[in-house]
Parts: sequence; structure tokens; C-alpha cells
Amino acid sequence: MSDPFVVVGADAAGLSAASKFRREAPDRDVVVFEMGQWISYAYCGMPYFIEGRVERMSNLLSLSPSEVADRGIDLRRGHKVVGVDPDAKTVAVETTEGDSFEQAYDDLLVATGGRASTGPFDVHGVDGAFTLHNMDTAAAIDAYVAEPDAYDPDRADVSAVDRERVDRNAAMEAPETAAIVGGGYVGVEMAEALVGRELDVHLFHRSGHILSDFGEAVGERVETELDAKGVTVHTSAPVEELVGDGRIEGIAFGGADGAETLPVDMAIVGVGIRPNTELLDGTGVELGAGGAVRTDEYGRTNLPDVYAAGDCATAVHAVTGEEAWMPLGLTANRAGRAIGATVAGDPSPVGEIAGTAVVKGFDMEAGRVGLVGDEAAREAGFDPVRETVTAGSRSGYYPGAAPTDVTLVADRDTGRLIGGSIAGPDRAAIRINTLATALEADMTVPEVERLDLAYAPPFSPVWDPILVAAKVLNGTLDGD
Amino acid sequence: MSDPFVVVGADAAGLSAASKFRREAPDRDVVVFEMGQWISYAYCGMPYFIEGRVERMSNLLSLSPSEVADRGIDLRRGHKVVGVDPDAKTVAVETTEGDSFEQAYDDLLVATGGRASTGPFDVHGVDGAFTLHNMDTAAAIDAYVAEPDAYDPDRADVSAVDRERVDRNAAMEAPETAAIVGGGYVGVEMAEALVGRELDVHLFHRSGHILSDFGEAVGERVETELDAKGVTVHTSAPVEELVGDGRIEGIAFGGADGAETLPVDMAIVGVGIRPNTELLDGTGVELGAGGAVRTDEYGRTNLPDVYAAGDCATAVHAVTGEEAWMPLGLTANRAGRAIGATVAGDPSPVGEIAGTAVVKGFDMEAGRVGLVGDEAAREAGFDPVRETVTAGSRSGYYPGAAPTDVTLVADRDTGRLIGGSIAGPDRAAIRINTLATALEADMTVPEVERLDLAYAPPFSPVWDPILVAAKVLNGTLDGD
Repeated sequence: MSDPFVVVGADAAGLSAASKFRREAPDRDVVVFEMGQWISYAYCGMPYFIEGRVERMSNLLSLSPSEVADRGIDLRRGHKVVGVDPDAKTVAVETTEGDSFEQAYDDLLVATGGRASTGPFDVHGVDGAFTLHNMDTAAAIDAYVAEPDAYDPDRADVSAVDRERVDRNAAMEAPETAAIVGGGYVGVEMAEALVGRELDVHLFHRSGHILSDFGEAVGERVETELDAKGVTVHTSAPVEELVGDGRIEGIAFGGADGAETLPVDMAIVGVGIRPNTELLDGTGVELGAGGAVRTDEYGRTNLPDVYAAGDCATAVHAVTGEEAWMPLGLTANRAGRAIGATVAGDPSPVGEIAGTAVVKGFDMEAGRVGLVGDEAAREAGFDPVRETVTAGSRSGYYPGAAPTDVTLVADRDTGRLIGGSIAGPDRAAIRINTLATALEADMTVPEVERLDLAYAPPFSPVWDPILVAAKVLNGTLDGD
Repeated sequence: MSDPFVVVGADAAGLSAASKFRREAPDRDVVVFEMGQWISYAYCGMPYFIEGRVERMSNLLSLSPSEVADRGIDLRRGHKVVGVDPDAKTVAVETTEGDSFEQAYDDLLVATGGRASTGPFDVHGVDGAFTLHNMDTAAAIDAYVAEPDAYDPDRADVSAVDRERVDRNAAMEAPETAAIVGGGYVGVEMAEALVGRELDVHLFHRSGHILSDFGEAVGERVETELDAKGVTVHTSAPVEELVGDGRIEGIAFGGADGAETLPVDMAIVGVGIRPNTELLDGTGVELGAGGAVRTDEYGRTNLPDVYAAGDCATAVHAVTGEEAWMPLGLTANRAGRAIGATVAGDPSPVGEIAGTAVVKGFDMEAGRVGLVGDEAAREAGFDPVRETVTAGSRSGYYPGAAPTDVTLVADRDTGRLIGGSIAGPDRAAIRINTLATALEADMTVPEVERLDLAYAPPFSPVWDPILVAAKVLNGTLDGD
């Protein structure tokens, strides 16, 4: 083994792998190529930076380049890997300075991540239109929202930042009305962020309820909260066009009343993420769910000694046992870490995913796990039965008790729990972990009903809302 | 089947059983005998009533006698069951009016609960000395703590209350210094309650750390919080005597500095609970763990058609598979409900217990589950290995992130998770449900490490504190 472990991409999956590898195999080399300047940043923290709740962009960085170097990792920023030769076991690299070279590898990890999709909308070259793509867009949005004379350049206090872009956005007149295109979790978080910056915010969602992946009960609950906090939520309102020449001027959208145009001076498009797999084009790599790189339980692709992890790779779904693609932070970190151990000689499974996700919209919390929608459940061969209950988050007499909605979905034939969601203002989100654990253990709804969950008046009623939902769903399964 | 289902005791287990039975078998009769006047009250809510956070005693009642009657349950308050004849299938009943009669049963549920133990201390006849035994003691404590001219008699707004006792305590001079004997969860909750009433509070605990059942890491953390909130915590300080003639005057206790006496004008003894099994003396009933009535997976005793549930009955421990006695609210409700269904003809297991418990002490939350102490683990045949980590409750950059201590205990040979505890100020307690679920699924620590738990900056870091603890414990199990 004379050649290093080569990692492409210096974010969650890549640096987790490199760090674990060096700890387990301190005598072996690892090289990490990152095409840009940013490394190890918290994508999920960007809305809270834009909101102003996080004061400095540097707060969102978990590791600095020097900390990475201290771990014995050979980090090369400004190095773009442009090709992989799986037979020669080399990658072709181009630097921002215009150099190019080949690097041999013993093992290769492709951790190229994903990119924010803009769907049919072109936000490039339109001032005031953005996707929440990376730290540079977050810095640009933050600068754009501020009044020109009130912008604090120290907000973007990281040398990697695209300062020219920040300055240009800071100089523009501050917006008053913002449209967010897409009611997924980024859309909800950005709605909260922009209300926090005192904008008049409109959220557009194509289908009947926002947070489609969380199910209708959650979507309705969060819509109510957004509305109460001043966000205008447009559901069943597909956006057709970003109107404007040079700078955004309006949003053209359809709906029950026909086509309309809402004048806005800011737009954020958040309609999904796509895996970055282009690097492996032509290598014979197999792609799978969502167009991501197909990987096995150890994160291996079909190419020898080539692994993939994070937002560019598939994983195995804990409920269906089938391949799935769900770009989420823990998945990337965990898979990276496992691959680092495996490459170092300690074979470690990357783990399954349950599709656990949580989101906060102002004072409302929500979580989802497993197969929540009927369609997904049927596709996986289940016959879904569901119940939604509203139960108290604490004993009724204890101050702070709040209605908590729990939806449980089971397979009719087997009674197995296959998914669930939770929404409520009082510690609701973290309760989803109970369902995630039950799902991974393949529990049935009767087993969930008999879980010995915590009870104390400040934290839960005698029957936790999850137990209440299990009781009701059991009744339905029994044909009550 | 001509005779009714007879239930002894009208609290959580008894009324859950009667209610479920009537719903499932609406044509059959159920009679519930309750020796006192109180029914269906929230024992766990009493500290919060005394604290003043709950305004009215009636807030702690979940069901009124008329609501019970509306369910078709024949509730007889002031009826004490004094004997059981399992051969004749009758119970002997005495009323507070002095009547006595026999009642035949088809099935019998003994749900006589437990009573607060006072250990070697006699609180009876000593003014200012109490145990937190029932609603009448809660009302008396509340009245005693108030200044005579400031007591609001509407606080104890339930007709069942022992008004003479309330009035007598209300008339006494209000206390300034209170001793709480016993640092279990009731002791911690009462410390918070009495500080809330502006008393100078001393908490005495026999061994090295309070909350012994929660493990040392939790005990230390809660002690720090109590101290910060003005409670003087005396650990390794066994109380020897309640000093005083007529009214409490002091607490004599031992410790590192030898015997001392602290002057107090109030004392609350909370040193444990004992099961009420005397009713079955002489019937040949088998007792088990903790001296409670031994029951099987359906809540059946060894006597034909005689069930037991709640604080007077044993249960099966999810980790050991052995008999255990842990008097907790959910256990009682769940077993009662299952027995109601079983007696109605739908055999339903009462479920196992995992020993899940949570407690709040001011701004600190704690939870525990399974086998936390080494001794309990060894007795059950495990070779315990443990790790305690401190990890953030949220992403470090998100406001409100707080250090959360997680202890996980595993069996060395099998790597199986056998217990755990959590402490922290930010939504720490409810996280114990994740461990409770993992325990019931017999998960190993590697399986826990691979759980797909929720991540979003306001709720959890990428690696949930439970995952961090599992990572560290796995390292230890691997011999790292």
C-alpha cells in the first residue's frame, strides 16, 4: 500500500472519513481535494446566520484548515478533481492556479456532495434571486437583506468568502418583500429567517401542504404557525416564472384563481437538492436512487476501491431494506466515519437511514421518520394504515402543556410500524427519535404501545403522545 | 358469569381497568371499592401543587366520581375491602358508616397501591413533619407553609379533603427552614417546591449522591443545580432523628463531622414507597420483588381469577427478563388497562417495565432507564461497562445549546445496552425515551451508534449526545 487514501470533497463525509482514517491508521497518508475554499461548514446553520441568530459566519465552521492539518490530513483547497481512472487508480486534478496533475490512490472516497436545484428557474444573473447553495450564497443573501449603510462586513468574517459578491449585494437597496419558492424544510427555515430580518415573506408551495415529506398533519400545523407569524403561505401555487430583468421584480404563479404575479424584490428558490456525480461519468459507476452513486453497506461503489458517501451517495433504508437517497447531515458524517475505519482496515457498516428529519418554524417543531406518505409505503410493498392524534406534551395541569400531533403509519397485515410524524410547540421534534429507534428495531404498533416511556408532569403526561397514537392505531388495526 | 368484576382501589390501575373493561364488555358489571374519598388523582403532581405552580388541588384530579359513574362503573367510596376469600370468590367490605357485607366476584383486581414509607421516623403527631403520602398530606403541607393570614382555603378546593387537618396546619406559624429527608426524585421535586415557597431548604441524603437510582453522573449534576438555586444538599448524611416535642424542632444527622442537629421548623420524609399487600394476607398469595404481589405477564396472581396491578404488584423487567418492582405511574395505568381488556375477554399482556424515570430539579432535567448501577447489573448476570460523555444539546452555534451528560451501560461480553442516564438543562429528560426504546429492542451499543437520530441546529448537533456516548462506549468495548 504505497499510495494514499484520496478523498474528494472536504465537507461532512470527506473530512469525517479522513479524520477517522488518520486516527485508525496514523502511519498512512490521506489527501483531501476540495475544489473551493470552504471546508467543513454547517449547511444547516445558514438560515440561522441569515436570520441573525448566529452572529458571525465563522461560527458555522467546525474545523479550520489548520485544525485539519493538525490531524495529519493533507488538505488541498482550490483543487478540483476532474476525472477518475478506476483501472489506473488515479484521479486527475486541476488547481485554481491552472496547474494539473494526476494523483494515484489506494482507496478513493467520492464525497462531492449535492447542489441546490433551481428547477426550471434561472437565478444566475438576476440580482435579488438566490438559492441557498453554500456559504457564499448565505453571505450574499445576508448582505442583500441589509440596508446598504447598515451592513456589517464582519458578519462574513471568513477569508474564503467571495467578498466581491458580498460587497455587490450589500450595496443594493434592501428588499421589502421576499418570495420563497418551495415549502420544504429549507423554505420554512428561510421564511422564519427573513421574517426575523423584518421582510414581508411569501412562501410558495406547489402541492396542497408544505413540508410534503412530513405528511399533511404536520404541514397544516406548520402553515398555521407561519401564518400566525406573518408569513403568507401560498399552497397549491406552482411558481411559473421569476419575473425581472437584471433584478427580481415579481413572482408569477398559478393557483385556484389562475395566473397571478406578486411584486417582490427578493426571491429564494429552494426546490430540492441534486447529487454531484459528474466526476464519475464515464467510469462505469452504477447510479441508483435519486441519481446518486450506488453504494453497499460499507459505502463501496461497484468500482474497485472506490467509495462514495454523503449527499452524492445512496444508502439503505431501515424500513424498506431498499436503496434510498436522502441527503442529510448525520448520514454524511456517519458514512464518512465508517468508510474511514473500513479503509484503515476495520470494516464498519455505514448504517441504514430511517429518513429522520426535524424542522423548526418559529415556535412550532416537527419531525418525521420512515414512510409517512401512502404512496411511498405502497411502493415499498406495504398496505399503509394511519392515525393522527392530538395529545398533551405534559400533564394537563402543568404549565406549558401544549397540543402535540402524532401520526403513526403501520402496515395493515403485519402491524409493523413503518413511519410517523410529530408536530407541536413543546419539545415535539426530539420525540421523533423514539419512533426512529422503534423503526430500526422493526417494532410493531402493539410493541410501541407497550414501550415504557418517561412520565413526569413537566415532561410528559402519563401516556406519552406516542403511546396515545399507538393505542388508537392499534384499535384501528384490530378493526375497532 | 353472574358476578361482577371487582376492583379494589380507585386510582390509576383500578380505574384504568374498570374503564377499559366497561368499554370492551358494556353488558357486564364492574364494582370499584375505594376506602377513602379521593379517586384518580395525580400523585406526581403534588409537588407542583405545593410549589404553587398548580393553582388548585382540583387541577390534579383526572376523573370525578360522576365521570366515573357516567362510564357505567359502580364506584363505592368509603368502602374498605378487609378480606379476600379466593375459594368462595368473595371480598369482605366495611364502610365508613360501619356497615359490612360480602361481595362476590367473577374476577378480582387488587389495585391497592403503595404508601410512603417513613423509615424509622414517626411523623404522626409531630406538627410540621410530613410524608408526601396522598392528597390530604399535600393539602396539609400547602396550608402549613403559608402564613396563617395569607392562606387561601380555595387552594384545597376538593370536597374530599380533610378540612380539619388543613385548617389546623393553616393556623400554625409558617416555617422558615425545611429539611427534606431522602434525595430521591420526590425529595428533589419537594426541594424545588419549597424554595418556590421561599423556605430555606436542606436536603439530606444517606449515601454519596442524591438520585442514587439515576447514577452518580446525574446525582452530581442535579446537586450542583440545587446548590445554585439555594438548596443546601447534605450527602453522606444519614438522618438519625426528627427532634421535637409536639412540633418539629430539628434534624439530627450524622456525617463526616460526626453527629449534628440542624434547627428546622418543617420536615418532609421521602425515603421510599412500600406496596400495600396486607389485604391478601392469609390467602396464600405469592409475594415477589420488593414484597409486592407477584404477577405474570397478564397481571394474574397465583390465586385463580385474582389480578394485581400498580404500585402493589410486580412486573417483568425488560432488560433482565426477571421480576421487578418499580412503582411508577405509567406502569399502573398500562397494567390496569391491559387487565381490564383481559378480564373482558381480550387477553392483553401488561407489558414489561424498563425502569424509565425522569425528574426535574429547577432548570436541570434528568432521566434514567434500565440497569444504571453496577450492582444491579452484576446481580442480573451482566458484566457492566460504562462511559459518561458531555455533549451539546444543539449545534454549538445555536443559542441555547447546553452541556448534556449521557451515561451508557453495556454488558461487556455481548455489547448489549443494559441501561443509561441523561442530565442537562435543555430538553435532556425526554431523550431518555430513545434509550428506553433501544433497551426494549435488546439493541447492542453498535446498533445504538448507528441509529438515525434527528439533526437540526435548534434541536440537536449532527451527532446526538446519545450517539456520542455510544461511539465512546464502543471504543471502550473494542478495547481502544
